[in-house]
Amino acid sequence: MTKVNLKILAQELGVSISTVSKALQDSYEISQETKDRVRSLAKKLNFQPNPYASSLRRHQTRTIAVVVPEIANNFFALAINGIESIAQERGYHVLIYLTDDSYEKEISICEHLESGRIDGVLMSVTTETQGYEHIAKLIDKGILLVFFDRVRHEIETAKVTTDDFVSGLNATEHLIQNGAKRIAYLSLSSHLSIDYKRKAGYLEVLHKYDIPPEPELIVECTNNDEEAYRRIKNLFESPNRPDGVFASVEKLATITYAVCQELSLQIPQDIKLICFSNLKIASLLSPPLSTITQPAFEIGKEAANILFQHLDRKRASIPNENIVLKSVLVPRASSQEGI
Amino acid sequence: MTKVNLKILAQELGVSISTVSKALQDSYEISQETKDRVRSLAKKLNFQPNPYASSLRRHQTRTIAVVVPEIANNFFALAINGIESIAQERGYHVLIYLTDDSYEKEISICEHLESGRIDGVLMSVTTETQGYEHIAKLIDKGILLVFFDRVRHEIETAKVTTDDFVSGLNATEHLIQNGAKRIAYLSLSSHLSIDYKRKAGYLEVLHKYDIPPEPELIVECTNNDEEAYRRIKNLFESPNRPDGVFASVEKLATITYAVCQELSLQIPQDIKLICFSNLKIASLLSPPLSTITQPAFEIGKEAANILFQHLDRKRASIPNENIVLKSVLVPRASSQEGI
Repeated sequence: MTKVNLKILAQELGVSISTVSKALQDSYEISQETKDRVRSLAKKLNFQPNPYASSLRRHQTRTIAVVVPEIANNFFALAINGIESIAQERGYHVLIYLTDDSYEKEISICEHLESGRIDGVLMSVTTETQGYEHIAKLIDKGILLVFFDRVRHEIETAKVTTDDFVSGLNATEHLIQNGAKRIAYLSLSSHLSIDYKRKAGYLEVLHKYDIPPEPELIVECTNNDEEAYRRIKNLFESPNRPDGVFASVEKLATITYAVCQELSLQIPQDIKLICFSNLKIASLLSPPLSTITQPAFEIGKEAANILFQHLDRKRASIPNENIVLKSVLVPRASSQEGI
Repeated sequence: MTKVNLKILAQELGVSISTVSKALQDSYEISQETKDRVRSLAKKLNFQPNPYASSLRRHQTRTIAVVVPEIANNFFALAINGIESIAQERGYHVLIYLTDDSYEKEISICEHLESGRIDGVLMSVTTETQGYEHIAKLIDKGILLVFFDRVRHEIETAKVTTDDFVSGLNATEHLIQNGAKRIAYLSLSSHLSIDYKRKAGYLEVLHKYDIPPEPELIVECTNNDEEAYRRIKNLFESPNRPDGVFASVEKLATITYAVCQELSLQIPQDIKLICFSNLKIASLLSPPLSTITQPAFEIGKEAANILFQHLDRKRASIPNENIVLKSVLVPRASSQEGI
């Protein structure tokens, strides 16, 4: 069987090859009627455009990339679902790249993306990411990029985040109002934009209540689970252990549960706990976990919407903009006695 | 600045363009020393090969695709991590495609993959997938494909799964040994390979213990969470409700917890529960959840290994083979009284 190509489609329809090509690329030069005829025949004959060739010509792949640190994480899984929902409406394919929270892998992925397989990128940086040249290079190549959640402020583009500072403030105040006096802040990495802001909210509340911040209560746990376990255990075994914990990310809270189990500490009687989390089953934990719940799905949707708006307008870059969606504090038994 | 190309690299090194090209493609015709020189200069000058052009020449993209129904699922998240670990060693990029458990989207993704952006595919089909022509077409185009977990047996290729039948058998027998007499089986979809086998194990044990199977105890829950909730609630409100539940996938177990909460039923006193699950925090649930834990990471690794073996040998297809890795039953309080 002869492979169906542009020439065959053109012959069948009695139009030029260029008309077929432009019709398939949805060019404004071609009437809707002709577009419909071309597409209908292309579909009937199962025409497969050569994506390499047509990408080279059009610089349009109808594909976007999502670069995230991990997917075994409810926030990212939900955000990706939000992105997919918009991409699907637009007829775009979504390629997900995992950095495994490795800076080196993030750089390698950016180099891969530079070569032009995609029209745009939605990105959340790793815990380790300290530079931003690899991202600047991508943007220099004309690839549109929007950050979500974990951003690099040095890069001028749109950034979709939650109100990390205010949420950090609310979480800490919630613990104080429920009787906690020595509150620890569990951080993933001080390099991380979200972490920095959540901690700033924590410090702000301590200041408001005239509680002097204690360096030993601010624990940088790293993204390694065993190391995080060790550091949290050290904290809880210290002579003057905290009676409240604000965990900046979900997994530091679940590790806190496990450490408490090992040390026979009761949540919330011995330690009141709240954390940023999109865990669907937070209410099924023993005890149910108090959370700051991010609008993860909406964050993904919003980031994708901004990217597509700029792709539609064929913009070469995206102006700097900070879009902040609000999180919700959901109090449950882990932070409150007697409920 | 002049864009670095093969010609510039060749001039700098005093070798032919063809030598540079072959060295970058790791050709056996070129000595290791020359390869090292070429690569080192290419890196120094930040040479970016044009992936479209070189892919057209080489039919090698050093990229594989993973097609999965969802990622807000611990099994798939872990399996993907396993795949990534092997791909990273091999210097391959991994593109993750989500079908959102939609048959239509799976077909669209397969058509996208047909166009040749990737060397191979690792796939787990959707709950709805009833045909297999879209997969057969991919393989016809010379793209190597390995199934993992959710397979289509009609397609001849390697399939990496767990021992679904034996595990279904063990789970059901575990409930009987802990006193359950009326055991329900919660299914996602009767079209699904894994579901069919897990149910076969369930039925085998009923037969062994002379328990006649009751159709109303086998509930096809669908992949829609609200619908699953309704169907499980209906089951538990029936006059003759089950005292044991074997959930074929994790989320049907967490929905079971939620239904029990609403109906004030106690786990395990009223209903003993066990399920297939890779939930890391199963032991933190109230009560801790008994699981059949799949070797998810290893399943991903094994599937990737098989794919790369065949890519290395430049095989046109992969012979039929069933690789079965064992799951482990982890008994916890949800299926046993008094622990």
